[in-house]
Amino acid sequence: MSGIHPSELQLASDVSVSGGNITYVVIVAVIALGALGVAAGLVRQVLGADEGTDSMRRIAVAIQEGAAAYLTRQFRTLAVFAAGVFFLLMLLPADDWNQRIGRSLFFLVGAVFSAVTGYVGMWLAVRSNVRVAAAARAGAGSRDTAMRIAFRTGGVAGMFTVGLGLFGAALVVILYRENAPKVLEGFGFGAALLAMFMRVGGGIFTKAADVGADLVGKVEQGIPEDDPRNAATIADNVGDNVGDCAGMAADLFESYAVTLVAALILGKAAFGDAGLVFPLIVPAIGVLTAVVGIYTVAPRAGDRSGMSAINRGFFVSAVISLVLVAGAAFLYLPSKFSDLDGLTDQEILAHDADPRVFALVAVLIGIVLAAVIQQLTGYFTETSRRPVRDVTKTSLTGPATVILSGIALGLESAVYAAVLISVAVLGAYLLGAGIVMLALFAVALAGTGLLTTVGVIVAMDTFGPVSDNAQGIAEMSGDVEGEGARVLTELDAVGNTTKAITKGIAIATAVLAATALYGSYRDAVRTAVDEAGGLDAASKLTSLSFATDITQPNNLVGLILGAAVVFLFSGLAINAVSRAAGAVVFEVRNQFRTRPGIMDGSELPEYGRVVDICTRDSLRELATPGLLAVMAPIAVGFTLGIGPLAAFLAGAIGTGTLMAVFLANSGGAWDNAKKMVEDGDYGGKGSAAHEATIIGDTVGDPFKDTAGPAINPLLKVMNLVSLLIAPAVVKLSIGADENGALRALAAAFSVVVIVGAVWYSKRKSVVVGDGDQDREEQPTKAAA
Amino acid sequence: MSGIHPSELQLASDVSVSGGNITYVVIVAVIALGALGVAAGLVRQVLGADEGTDSMRRIAVAIQEGAAAYLTRQFRTLAVFAAGVFFLLMLLPADDWNQRIGRSLFFLVGAVFSAVTGYVGMWLAVRSNVRVAAAARAGAGSRDTAMRIAFRTGGVAGMFTVGLGLFGAALVVILYRENAPKVLEGFGFGAALLAMFMRVGGGIFTKAADVGADLVGKVEQGIPEDDPRNAATIADNVGDNVGDCAGMAADLFESYAVTLVAALILGKAAFGDAGLVFPLIVPAIGVLTAVVGIYTVAPRAGDRSGMSAINRGFFVSAVISLVLVAGAAFLYLPSKFSDLDGLTDQEILAHDADPRVFALVAVLIGIVLAAVIQQLTGYFTETSRRPVRDVTKTSLTGPATVILSGIALGLESAVYAAVLISVAVLGAYLLGAGIVMLALFAVALAGTGLLTTVGVIVAMDTFGPVSDNAQGIAEMSGDVEGEGARVLTELDAVGNTTKAITKGIAIATAVLAATALYGSYRDAVRTAVDEAGGLDAASKLTSLSFATDITQPNNLVGLILGAAVVFLFSGLAINAVSRAAGAVVFEVRNQFRTRPGIMDGSELPEYGRVVDICTRDSLRELATPGLLAVMAPIAVGFTLGIGPLAAFLAGAIGTGTLMAVFLANSGGAWDNAKKMVEDGDYGGKGSAAHEATIIGDTVGDPFKDTAGPAINPLLKVMNLVSLLIAPAVVKLSIGADENGALRALAAAFSVVVIVGAVWYSKRKSVVVGDGDQDREEQPTKAAA
Repeated sequence: MSGIHPSELQLASDVSVSGGNITYVVIVAVIALGALGVAAGLVRQVLGADEGTDSMRRIAVAIQEGAAAYLTRQFRTLAVFAAGVFFLLMLLPADDWNQRIGRSLFFLVGAVFSAVTGYVGMWLAVRSNVRVAAAARAGAGSRDTAMRIAFRTGGVAGMFTVGLGLFGAALVVILYRENAPKVLEGFGFGAALLAMFMRVGGGIFTKAADVGADLVGKVEQGIPEDDPRNAATIADNVGDNVGDCAGMAADLFESYAVTLVAALILGKAAFGDAGLVFPLIVPAIGVLTAVVGIYTVAPRAGDRSGMSAINRGFFVSAVISLVLVAGAAFLYLPSKFSDLDGLTDQEILAHDADPRVFALVAVLIGIVLAAVIQQLTGYFTETSRRPVRDVTKTSLTGPATVILSGIALGLESAVYAAVLISVAVLGAYLLGAGIVMLALFAVALAGTGLLTTVGVIVAMDTFGPVSDNAQGIAEMSGDVEGEGARVLTELDAVGNTTKAITKGIAIATAVLAATALYGSYRDAVRTAVDEAGGLDAASKLTSLSFATDITQPNNLVGLILGAAVVFLFSGLAINAVSRAAGAVVFEVRNQFRTRPGIMDGSELPEYGRVVDICTRDSLRELATPGLLAVMAPIAVGFTLGIGPLAAFLAGAIGTGTLMAVFLANSGGAWDNAKKMVEDGDYGGKGSAAHEATIIGDTVGDPFKDTAGPAINPLLKVMNLVSLLIAPAVVKLSIGADENGALRALAAAFSVVVIVGAVWYSKRKSVVVGDGDQDREEQPTKAAA
Repeated sequence: MSGIHPSELQLASDVSVSGGNITYVVIVAVIALGALGVAAGLVRQVLGADEGTDSMRRIAVAIQEGAAAYLTRQFRTLAVFAAGVFFLLMLLPADDWNQRIGRSLFFLVGAVFSAVTGYVGMWLAVRSNVRVAAAARAGAGSRDTAMRIAFRTGGVAGMFTVGLGLFGAALVVILYRENAPKVLEGFGFGAALLAMFMRVGGGIFTKAADVGADLVGKVEQGIPEDDPRNAATIADNVGDNVGDCAGMAADLFESYAVTLVAALILGKAAFGDAGLVFPLIVPAIGVLTAVVGIYTVAPRAGDRSGMSAINRGFFVSAVISLVLVAGAAFLYLPSKFSDLDGLTDQEILAHDADPRVFALVAVLIGIVLAAVIQQLTGYFTETSRRPVRDVTKTSLTGPATVILSGIALGLESAVYAAVLISVAVLGAYLLGAGIVMLALFAVALAGTGLLTTVGVIVAMDTFGPVSDNAQGIAEMSGDVEGEGARVLTELDAVGNTTKAITKGIAIATAVLAATALYGSYRDAVRTAVDEAGGLDAASKLTSLSFATDITQPNNLVGLILGAAVVFLFSGLAINAVSRAAGAVVFEVRNQFRTRPGIMDGSELPEYGRVVDICTRDSLRELATPGLLAVMAPIAVGFTLGIGPLAAFLAGAIGTGTLMAVFLANSGGAWDNAKKMVEDGDYGGKGSAAHEATIIGDTVGDPFKDTAGPAINPLLKVMNLVSLLIAPAVVKLSIGADENGALRALAAAFSVVVIVGAVWYSKRKSVVVGDGDQDREEQPTKAAA
């Protein structure tokens, strides 16, 4: 039942990882840098395209300035926070100062890499949008060119995600060898923490602008989306980039980094030295195949839609990955576990499979999971399938039935996704044949299997905001007409589906990474118990497994609290969007009222003011959910102990998985139901059915683009915080703590911070604007 | 760490429970029958009131007939199902045939009691509604009389709930003595299973009628609620009774019975014989104080609102309960654990507290929890508080913001409720001072503390549908005017809040009962392991606690699946309402179209047809969620084993608690936001704000009255099924199973049934009516 004791791992640092193995890791690092080179090539290709008319360029520049201003201000705010965490990490237990400093340093590296990935993806996206729009000016034949520019822009984000993620992890292994696990924790934590803030902040920005723009523009004034008279349009387009583009890239970078971290920590325990290499080889293969995938997305004559080309890119790279991984497993790994230095003799007897088959099947599970989740998400969110058609049909009986059917669809689809992920975890678990540490490594390897598809996935996702922006620029400038405009609409619809698919796969990586990190947590707990001394080995084992026995009431309480954090986080994120959107509504209304020239087109609205409001509000609003994620595990761990903390994580993972998919798919379905009506079903634009689906879409906006995707980094941050504090919590739990008072203080402090942050966010709970003043200024529809 | 081994409990059946103890139990049974006597007196008082005009009586008779027809048909359907379960239960392991037969027999008793409680409460409610309306004809001074009739009607349901629950449990103890636990499992299962079906079926009926009536009446035709021209009005009023009244009474009866069952099973293990008596004394005291509470609800001159009187009834009975329980604990229980025959000597050394203080504090936790949850729910759903005011304010920016703010409110309030319940469980756990079985008994005792308030709670809840119906009858007949109508509106608003409070407390009882049942599950597992033989005691303990170690991937999978069942169940319930409401919409539209006389009042609509549709559809729709609840634990247990089954329950409890409160409070807040606008805020009736809140209320209907409250019996049914199959699952898990093939068959069968049921419910996923035909018949708003 027990894996290798990590004590052996920690104490083995005098034995060096063999030179041959390090050579492989160096090759991986070189491949990772190669990915950045490919990215540079793609950037040149994208920037070489035509920028369109003056008017288009002007709009693009406004978006570029807004996006850069937001990210700069966000990074400045987060830098202070990161510096604080840098020093706090130093205080946490480690074997020596080498580990402590490495952990803190690589925490910063992880955070910076996460930021860079997001920034670069966005930097290019705000330059490519106008080029896609310009390409569409050529009319009907322009689809292929426009699509290629958009997808290659995504390719840059994809290459940065995998390149930096792989390079960072390889660097840690090269520099720290056997000490790598502790340092990797720091790297993963930096990546996850920054990604969470970028996800939450970007998510609030984009949806505040979007919802605000829709409420005044479409609903109150009856002007179309992206109409230049709406002061929130530039902010809306900026939001697509800072949220869907920078936020998502950082998020997937974080998934990438954290999965690698978990695989390397567990790999060392299960496979010995080879376990520090093989989990790097798999994603390195993914880098190579991602390049193939990105270049394969050349639309062909026979394609039904833009989606066909993207699907081809995905499946081509998945199949090539699988073949190459099989080759790598059989070339690199030995045929017997006894030739690896991971498992104990007793365990090798219990598990007589071929490690090459073991590794290959585990990776296969991950790749297949990615493909199946892609199909499932497509089924529930594409306009051609029955679920969205059914939701659209309910628009005939008004907005209430649209909301209800969308919520039911989301709840149900979440269950299928959860069952699929469960089957994958269970499959990996069975590969371990009862040896828990090996089972956990199999889960982590399945995670690296998923990672082989991440390059293409990020490219697919970035495709969304770029084509959305392109349509926005075309609409605002009025310089793209006829067939060209139709091409952009088609690309936008394809982007909606790719965005939904990315979210499905992102949450799958989150569950696999979190489950695997759980293994590291288990490890950390055992090490801490070992070091605490006093008890004999058997009693330690018993007392620990009792501690995490889920049928104990205190652990059930931990579990309920973990589920509660997911609910609270989602509620806070949705509320934050409502509040920020209220401020946008107020500003846009105000501009319409004080400058009558805007409506007749003789005067331009002040776009910058709305961008400023979104920037200010989203940065203020991200504090509460962010602090909640960091502080909740500390509060639970130091108050309730090690068992409830484990159950807390389990509760968060279980509820978080379902909630994330529910929010993403409900939102995606509503978005596409609206598109169906706009395409002419049930009365088309302007009908009651259209109004009903617009309401559904507005509800879905913060679901799918703020709360839902942020749950992914939330789970990882909470897992990593727990991993970092586990040794300290164990000491407290078994009463061997010399710093009891300090820990109690930490618990009390965490609770106070959470309560304070929630209270702070409630202070301004007015959603409509600045209270009654606004109420008088804006007559209700009936009165108007 | 270990409590007394239940093997001792099982084998002790030759030692008889002392005569003195049985005397106490007989007294409890007499008190329980006394409660039924009080109910008879209340019935006489209610029926003695004036029945109003002919026209009012005619409407009341239509409601009575519809309600009786539905329940009769439901009971006929469920009788077949219950007969099947009766024989299946015989097949499950037990010590002897005496236990087997007792368990099956008392399964039927539990089911029949549950049905009777629901039926009687409803029988009186459909007779009292017209009397309340008639009383209101007296005008301004009629509030007190009307309120008294409504609340005493609820009192009958309350007395039946506590009377039958207590009588059933006492009877089992009297008849089976030491064998009681196994038989009690049957009793609890019968109560929970029937309650779940009544909850789901009644919930679908009431909301299909309500949503259908609103969609055609308020939204399409612009006629007020309860307008006699709407063919769905009678069905709507019938629904209030079969859902909110019969369904809720059965549900709380089930909570009552299951909590008692858990307390008695654990009481035997922790307190010995006294543990089979004390958990009956506490609710017996609750019966006495409930009578006081019900008679205390006499409105006084100084009362701010009807709510003041109801609050007084609740708090008076809670305080008296506490004083009497203190008395009972100090008179009945000894001052040392060594004077009880529950704990082992070793455990007594570890726990040196006074058992009387232990018991009193545990009960106190439950009573305080009930009071605090009442306040919390009130805060989030009352119109005078900030949360609902904020939701109402968002109606200025349209339905989308109303939905978003209501969802955020629900998510957040669920977290506070979960934290409160967690604190209560943790408090009880700490009372156990490390002895798990004692901690679990403390949780169960806290549950019995909650139970002391159930009599008043049911009375409060039934108040809701009665006053709602009274308003409906007044509106339809047109015979209550001026001040009298205002009195009925006030009572209706009070009813909305009492209904929300009941749901909060119901879910709290669910968590406490489920946690305590968990203890029984733990017990059952140990017994089964003991009986399996082979391993020595220490290894058994270790292997078991390993089995339920939450950090193992297979257990995490179990947990995710448990959370998934809650999501699926909620999604199915919401979808069922949408589908059934679609059929109602179609029928009502059809009547308006084919009989033009209805609209101008020259012709009466055919109310009966809508009642028939609701009856047929709700009975068909309850099959899928019902089968899911029963089959899911079987599928998980027999496929994944005992650990994942435990984690499955934990995941369901964690997610279920949050989901239930979220759905209840979002729905309650939307309902009252609508009321606020109707009372004149933000433009009043007919304004855009009103339209927005109507949409919110319609979304909230299936949230708060179908999906949300059904989660409560869902958790209990899944727990009891797990408890019943636990011995068989253990045999399978430790490989000592002689019937492996049979069990695999059971697992496969369960999976097939679940998949089949879900597929079946999807077949007819059209929500609007009969497809495209309907689409052409009903022009969209824009076209009209």
